[in-house]
Amino acid sequence: MPITIALDAMGGDDAPLFVVNGTEIARARYPDAKFIMYGDERRIFPLLSKKKKLIECCEIRHTDAVVGPDDKPSQALRHGQESSMRKAIDAVASGEATGVVSAGNTGALMAMAKYVLKTVKGIDRPAIASFFPTIHGESTMLDLGANVECDSNNLVQFAVMGAAFARTVLGVECPSVALLNVGVEEMKGHEAVRSAAQVLHNSDFPFDFYGFVEGGDIALGTVDVVVTDGFTGNIALKATEGTAQLYSRFLRAAFKRSVFSRVGYLLAKPALDTLRHKLDPRVYNGAMFVGLNGVVVKSHGGTDATGFASAIGVAVDMVKGRYGDLILEDCERLSAPGQTLRQAAAS
Amino acid sequence: MPITIALDAMGGDDAPLFVVNGTEIARARYPDAKFIMYGDERRIFPLLSKKKKLIECCEIRHTDAVVGPDDKPSQALRHGQESSMRKAIDAVASGEATGVVSAGNTGALMAMAKYVLKTVKGIDRPAIASFFPTIHGESTMLDLGANVECDSNNLVQFAVMGAAFARTVLGVECPSVALLNVGVEEMKGHEAVRSAAQVLHNSDFPFDFYGFVEGGDIALGTVDVVVTDGFTGNIALKATEGTAQLYSRFLRAAFKRSVFSRVGYLLAKPALDTLRHKLDPRVYNGAMFVGLNGVVVKSHGGTDATGFASAIGVAVDMVKGRYGDLILEDCERLSAPGQTLRQAAAS
Repeated sequence: MPITIALDAMGGDDAPLFVVNGTEIARARYPDAKFIMYGDERRIFPLLSKKKKLIECCEIRHTDAVVGPDDKPSQALRHGQESSMRKAIDAVASGEATGVVSAGNTGALMAMAKYVLKTVKGIDRPAIASFFPTIHGESTMLDLGANVECDSNNLVQFAVMGAAFARTVLGVECPSVALLNVGVEEMKGHEAVRSAAQVLHNSDFPFDFYGFVEGGDIALGTVDVVVTDGFTGNIALKATEGTAQLYSRFLRAAFKRSVFSRVGYLLAKPALDTLRHKLDPRVYNGAMFVGLNGVVVKSHGGTDATGFASAIGVAVDMVKGRYGDLILEDCERLSAPGQTLRQAAAS
Repeated sequence: MPITIALDAMGGDDAPLFVVNGTEIARARYPDAKFIMYGDERRIFPLLSKKKKLIECCEIRHTDAVVGPDDKPSQALRHGQESSMRKAIDAVASGEATGVVSAGNTGALMAMAKYVLKTVKGIDRPAIASFFPTIHGESTMLDLGANVECDSNNLVQFAVMGAAFARTVLGVECPSVALLNVGVEEMKGHEAVRSAAQVLHNSDFPFDFYGFVEGGDIALGTVDVVVTDGFTGNIALKATEGTAQLYSRFLRAAFKRSVFSRVGYLLAKPALDTLRHKLDPRVYNGAMFVGLNGVVVKSHGGTDATGFASAIGVAVDMVKGRYGDLILEDCERLSAPGQTLRQAAAS
């Protein structure tokens, strides 16, 4: 399958600079991929023209309009038809591109992607997924904020989408999937999480349903895929990031405390650099909008070229792994003889 | 006010050893306090008899019955009337003790405390609160798991209870209080969190209502009190603890990587020990059951004497600070001319 990634060249704090530089890094990693950049040609071309190899596999499509970081999703949807973000999504809908990456306004990107691409058959609502380092390697979690309130059907569908992501991007053949809860016993949690667990226990998905996990299991990496509603997932993810920052700050302050600790830091620096690399948020840059007819990756708005290249990498892996097809197959698996996911969940 | 703390001497992994040793530490810190230990006299007395000063301010009340770590709350409630846990709670209800500390089964402790002590007038449901280190010092968060589903009234009441806790235990005169949400803008989040924000904005509490905070603000210490439902709070707290563990583990591994990093560790050790102390979970041991007619502190079941002494310290501070009275006053403040908290929230 030829891979063409549509890029919103104007989204993000320092666009289009990090977009062009990030795409150059991605080009070297994925020599088969092609790119289409949407945005202001007068600003993109001078940057692109310096990259001799990139210019051969990257087209520019000019548009003046951009979605601002503070634009409301509804506003972007109504007035943003000519924006670089919308044009990049349209390229996926028309089949010209196989995936889209944007570092722009998250709400606008989700609203436009949902409107233009629609959800995969069998999926009611798209979700936001991401992956992060754990003691055992890497895990993914969803939903991270697209759906503040979720019923059990949504949770079951998120499990399907998360497992497909773990198979295509994390490369886990039969991922373990769990529902995030306040305890591991059957009767714990609210109605939605309990009935989603029942459906997942009784179904025949190509992944291993583990049951419930608790908040501490996220960083432990107890399972490959952690499923939760968008309210809890968003808060859990940000709480995790905040704690990591707190820890780094305390650590830096500790090393600066005395001459001895400064020398100690210098001696341990190579090892600490490895640790820093292991936890580098740029490696884990890229929130995937899953459940849509097309691959949509949201890069962090404040990222740099390295981070943007990681986001492109996620999009390429999802395309290569036939992400959308996997979800479709799993939805059909559950909806065998005339039964839809929704009915199975209700039964 | 004379301070008498009732202790469930039989709850926790290594009871009654750490209970007796922890009480000895607390006695030195709070020379005015008295203690009553409930449990097996044959096991408590040999330990207590070695502590000459403690034995003068600590009574033993014998009982053979204990609540097991796996007993269901309903079971404990029905058959646990003679247990050390129940007897300790009863001492608060009868007025013999001013607070109770137990390291036993959390669910059973909550069920019994709720049944025996009842909630403060104006409070519908008790919550679990705890405090933790942040960049700016210490903050508290509630509910941490007592109420899996919460409406806006519950959240408003949690704000009142959390603020009273920050005033009595953290010593903040006019604490800042915020609702945990997926964004800081007014329209973010679900109905319960949005209408709780409205009530808190329009009311006249002796604390500063900050609005919404996100998951990352927990560790940052943006506010003194973070208010959320028990599902989200439980998961956020455990996610935070899990990340701190992940970070420590990675750090230990980094220091072991080479001879240089080992030497670096030794040089930086005093500074790193200060960091470890700053984040020592034993200092932050003690989950408070707030909103009840009486001070109830749950110590971690796997804690040691130092941790148990911290939990006793929290109970003493709550008693000294007239924790219950503060909540009562605040509830009355909101319910001025014939209006109850519930009505204000609904209006």
